[in-house]
Amino acid sequence: MRDSQLGIGVVGYGYWGPNLVRNFSVNPATRVISVSDLDTGRLAAIKQLYPAVEVTSRYEDLLKDTRIDAIAIATPVHTHYELALAALKAGKHVLVEKPLAPSAELVTRLIDEADRRRLTLMVDHTFLYTPAVQKIRELLLSGELGDIYYYDSTRASLGLFQKDVNVIWDLAVHDISIIHHILDRAPIAVSATGSCHVVGSPENMAHITLFFADACVAHVSVNWLSPVKVRQTFIGGSKKMIVYDDLEPTEKIKVYDKGITLDGPTEDARELRIGYRAGDMWAPHISTKEALQTEVEHFIDCVRNGVAPISGGMSALRVVEVLDAASRSIAAQGNPVRINQPQQVRERVRARA
Amino acid sequence: MRDSQLGIGVVGYGYWGPNLVRNFSVNPATRVISVSDLDTGRLAAIKQLYPAVEVTSRYEDLLKDTRIDAIAIATPVHTHYELALAALKAGKHVLVEKPLAPSAELVTRLIDEADRRRLTLMVDHTFLYTPAVQKIRELLLSGELGDIYYYDSTRASLGLFQKDVNVIWDLAVHDISIIHHILDRAPIAVSATGSCHVVGSPENMAHITLFFADACVAHVSVNWLSPVKVRQTFIGGSKKMIVYDDLEPTEKIKVYDKGITLDGPTEDARELRIGYRAGDMWAPHISTKEALQTEVEHFIDCVRNGVAPISGGMSALRVVEVLDAASRSIAAQGNPVRINQPQQVRERVRARA
Amino acid sequence: MRDSQLGIGVVGYGYWGPNLVRNFSVNPATRVISVSDLDTGRLAAIKQLYPAVEVTSRYEDLLKDTRIDAIAIATPVHTHYELALAALKAGKHVLVEKPLAPSAELVTRLIDEADRRRLTLMVDHTFLYTPAVQKIRELLLSGELGDIYYYDSTRASLGLFQKDVNVIWDLAVHDISIIHHILDRAPIAVSATGSCHVVGSPENMAHITLFFADACVAHVSVNWLSPVKVRQTFIGGSKKMIVYDDLEPTEKIKVYDKGITLDGPTEDARELRIGYRAGDMWAPHISTKEALQTEVEHFIDCVRNGVAPISGGMSALRVVEVLDAASRSIAAQGNPVRINQPQQVRERVRARA
Amino acid sequence: MRDSQLGIGVVGYGYWGPNLVRNFSVNPATRVISVSDLDTGRLAAIKQLYPAVEVTSRYEDLLKDTRIDAIAIATPVHTHYELALAALKAGKHVLVEKPLAPSAELVTRLIDEADRRRLTLMVDHTFLYTPAVQKIRELLLSGELGDIYYYDSTRASLGLFQKDVNVIWDLAVHDISIIHHILDRAPIAVSATGSCHVVGSPENMAHITLFFADACVAHVSVNWLSPVKVRQTFIGGSKKMIVYDDLEPTEKIKVYDKGITLDGPTEDARELRIGYRAGDMWAPHISTKEALQTEVEHFIDCVRNGVAPISGGMSALRVVEVLDAASRSIAAQGNPVRINQPQQVRERVRARA
Repeated sequence: MRDSQLGIGVVGYGYWGPNLVRNFSVNPATRVISVSDLDTGRLAAIKQLYPAVEVTSRYEDLLKDTRIDAIAIATPVHTHYELALAALKAGKHVLVEKPLAPSAELVTRLIDEADRRRLTLMVDHTFLYTPAVQKIRELLLSGELGDIYYYDSTRASLGLFQKDVNVIWDLAVHDISIIHHILDRAPIAVSATGSCHVVGSPENMAHITLFFADACVAHVSVNWLSPVKVRQTFIGGSKKMIVYDDLEPTEKIKVYDKGITLDGPTEDARELRIGYRAGDMWAPHISTKEALQTEVEHFIDCVRNGVAPISGGMSALRVVEVLDAASRSIAAQGNPVRINQPQQVRERVRARA
Repeated sequence: MRDSQLGIGVVGYGYWGPNLVRNFSVNPATRVISVSDLDTGRLAAIKQLYPAVEVTSRYEDLLKDTRIDAIAIATPVHTHYELALAALKAGKHVLVEKPLAPSAELVTRLIDEADRRRLTLMVDHTFLYTPAVQKIRELLLSGELGDIYYYDSTRASLGLFQKDVNVIWDLAVHDISIIHHILDRAPIAVSATGSCHVVGSPENMAHITLFFADACVAHVSVNWLSPVKVRQTFIGGSKKMIVYDDLEPTEKIKVYDKGITLDGPTEDARELRIGYRAGDMWAPHISTKEALQTEVEHFIDCVRNGVAPISGGMSALRVVEVLDAASRSIAAQGNPVRINQPQQVRERVRARA
Repeated sequence: MRDSQLGIGVVGYGYWGPNLVRNFSVNPATRVISVSDLDTGRLAAIKQLYPAVEVTSRYEDLLKDTRIDAIAIATPVHTHYELALAALKAGKHVLVEKPLAPSAELVTRLIDEADRRRLTLMVDHTFLYTPAVQKIRELLLSGELGDIYYYDSTRASLGLFQKDVNVIWDLAVHDISIIHHILDRAPIAVSATGSCHVVGSPENMAHITLFFADACVAHVSVNWLSPVKVRQTFIGGSKKMIVYDDLEPTEKIKVYDKGITLDGPTEDARELRIGYRAGDMWAPHISTKEALQTEVEHFIDCVRNGVAPISGGMSALRVVEVLDAASRSIAAQGNPVRINQPQQVRERVRARA
Repeated sequence: MRDSQLGIGVVGYGYWGPNLVRNFSVNPATRVISVSDLDTGRLAAIKQLYPAVEVTSRYEDLLKDTRIDAIAIATPVHTHYELALAALKAGKHVLVEKPLAPSAELVTRLIDEADRRRLTLMVDHTFLYTPAVQKIRELLLSGELGDIYYYDSTRASLGLFQKDVNVIWDLAVHDISIIHHILDRAPIAVSATGSCHVVGSPENMAHITLFFADACVAHVSVNWLSPVKVRQTFIGGSKKMIVYDDLEPTEKIKVYDKGITLDGPTEDARELRIGYRAGDMWAPHISTKEALQTEVEHFIDCVRNGVAPISGGMSALRVVEVLDAASRSIAAQGNPVRINQPQQVRERVRARA
């Protein structure tokens, strides 16, 4: 190991862990020291592919290992809090798969622990690091779309049913983090509905509407029981509109110079004085760089230079607060639930403690 | 005119009227006698294309014309009730563009008037007559999909903003009528959210969740302000699933032999004992017959032989009751609203009268 | 009939004839006087839809009718020459479905007859009047694509097998006319291969390569026996490239800012010093105006004002010469055949006469 | 290393080499001992990802290494012959990236050398090992498509210009190998045209027609200068037809129950008595197993058990003979060239030696 390399431990080698190991392996600034998983078959798979990486079935080995500077956690959601807290207490920086923890209270405690120890706490909201979302954010911030009217997203597939979280904690979490990242406003209330089609399983399908203080609205549709994979987002603005299809290999973002004009001629007595503009479509070139590579670079920058993570604790807290409010609205068949701002949430949690 | 031909009058020659005139013109069993519209430019257009059709700017001319047996109404929604009632009172059968009338009360009065006079009252729920919806209904009734888990539809375009109705009365009405037609159960409650992005205009975007007595759920997303046209419906069953894309020129319906199995092997401790089946996809051949042609044939059959219309008054009443409940839920930001069954609605209206 | 209206006769009411009748009917400057077809069922269909249009089974009725100024011919290819010649001799302007006639010799005779009588002779190369091809021509002429490297087109469907012409005379004719219209150069030789899969039927599948004097090349693939419809053209230039998909409802033309650079860095010893540029994609807004409407307007302009048709006799001659050369190459399994320029062809035909 | 593991050496770590190293690494029956490449930057990349793999810039190190049983060659085409011959002479089994060698003569010599030493000689015609091509072969052999009318393929992208081979040796090679594998007949002649748009570079675009003894025909269109990637094959049969799109993530193969009937009713005098059948479409479930994984397993089986490779020397010889004939046809602007059968080619080469 070169002196300048950051030592990395990874816990969990199921669905996402292999991506973490691969990306930390190819980054010259980091070295994967050890991977921990309870499944010995998986540990053997690591040895076959990465003979130099150590493997263990005991998480404590990672915590005690002084060569390890940071730990990446890719285990089931209900274990995130405990594993992350232990890592922070062992003086390790942490990168946790989304969602950071199953409640605002637990997220707040992790934020406090990381703050106290001046350690980096980052949640793996991977989509924020995709070239596509970065381009969309750039377009929105530049004002090119005008006023933002709506964000409407569908994320569906014949997905992995999770045991410990429902579909919104698994899939809608991506959109909630993207919405906070690209819109310069926070939702104030949520109405959501959800359904469970497998007895004893959490909701596998949900529809979420987020209300903002202005006319902007966001809607997220998620489904684990779809025959085809869908990853599609429509963003409507007063000047232009975006269709973002993450499954498109190259033209992921299409910007439409379409919209309405309010002083247009009326053709039909039934219509308002609303005209329609149909202009060109434009698909900006999108880099093909893997998001996790960018995220790993950003994580290294945060650890080394004390930079505040784009997807740090407060970002995670905002997302978890929305997911929690949406879950309560689902239980009440769409009854709207107010969303608290993260600072309020944090203070409330602290007051309670 | 052959004796056996049914004489047709059409009122309204805006967006939909030309389709009515064309379909009644090519059907050998009917003859378009006269078309009424307030716009003289449109009347001239009719003369250019159909020199034999009479035109008038006075609707009364149609009512008084004894050669006219039935009147097709394709005018703005707020005029439907008055025009349909006058036609029935003049002894004409009527075919009304959807929605039949803007409230359950007005629909009930039309049903009563038609019943009293033994006239056909039919609402133009065109989609029920498409070969695609007919095929879907056949697949669902045959049990091929197993238990129906969900119906999830998106209907969006850079559409015609309507002055007198919002987007759910314009677009969701299609899905509500389809849902009632293909599922053998009726929704019992609705949660809906909607947004208005043009000051002074009705809602141009809405999301509706329909709850049923069992685990089945329906969701309808409608949008007048979308950069691209979308007409896509997912139907999930316990055995198979359907993707219905009405914009596909030929393969409109795809049936996926995909789903979940509950006794499958567990690969990951995070997962339930849920397995995934990924089988073949099958796209049944769909006739290309125009829906309105089938609908016109059915209307003629109803008028001539006293057959009860597939999309008759009670069908319209069910749809309007759902649209009305959804509108109330939108006003309450998603708060769920109970849906009354049509017979209850009818009795309530009569009791009030 | 208004004095200013041009009287139109149409012969042939099979696949294409109804489009001609409809477009001449809606154009206020023309009036369809009479339609001739040998099939009485079709004549009845015309009467049902256009009661004011006269119908006849004798073509001579059209020739003798003094109210008719121009005749549109939509009959099988082998009848084009005879019908067009008779129309010209009767003093009528003519618009003939493509291809104008089955040989360069017959085309030349029609050109001569029209010239002598100062009548408009136009061939219905419909694609030249589509907004898409007009936009492509504009882009190419503006130099936006740089030097044109290639035109590569596929036109396939489960098509109507023609009795009297093979697939290149039915489908490739479109591309040949487009190529002549958008490229400012003419092909000098052709190599083509073709196959016949139905005994006793003409070739139903063919591939044609057109050579030019420079490095530019055109390839056209046509197929009557394809399970799905394809209408796709790639145009490569030194600066930009176009993908034109005529089946796309709105984004028919996509312009890619992609290409190669010759001084780019070499990453691999196997590669030349060729770099790759991957820039944005842009889909210009394309009008949805029906091509035949534009073509009818142009035909009226030619007849009234003596304007030379975009798709006149010489244009037809160029196309027929290429089709003829391609047919000879097919017979010789791809052996290249030289293409004569239209003026040479015309002179050769005259010399022979 | 377990005794039972096959020791693998890989030469060339450019575009394809990393896939070979990865697939041999994850297969428990093989172990990558050493990788050779002239570029030291690449060797460092290997060490970062596979610390246990040895690296060298001298190919001789692989030849001399007794732990190495087989060598995989992924270097530029002009080096294949020399490297493969040296490997065989060193007693190693060889797997060579396609095409095996740049001429039938060199391929023959490799076949002879491998035969003499009873070593496995396999060419990496990867597509033969894809689940999609395996399924197509199964469908064709079962007779489900009826008589095969045509194979028509397009393989285009903004590709890597090769220095030492033209586009047919790079891309058409895939189709030629597939055609031989799935059709139970061999082409007897070829007509091809090609173009070069970069001065000093080999042909970057080509169209190839293969003639068979019967009415079956194959066409392959390849292009290094396409703005979008295309990997699409149409296969037409007398009973059914296939569209195979390798870029589709899941529904790669669509089987259309469409075709023509010869005794159908005639609607139009222009048409033959040919009817059209438009039935269902069916997309069989295709495994997502990586082709190279299957190929590696087959290679191991060949080496260990003396099984004859699906893509062995004679298969390579057939492909190279077609590529060579096509190149000659290109030079003669489409003039057809006769294709010799591999046994003839081999004997001719031996006779010359």
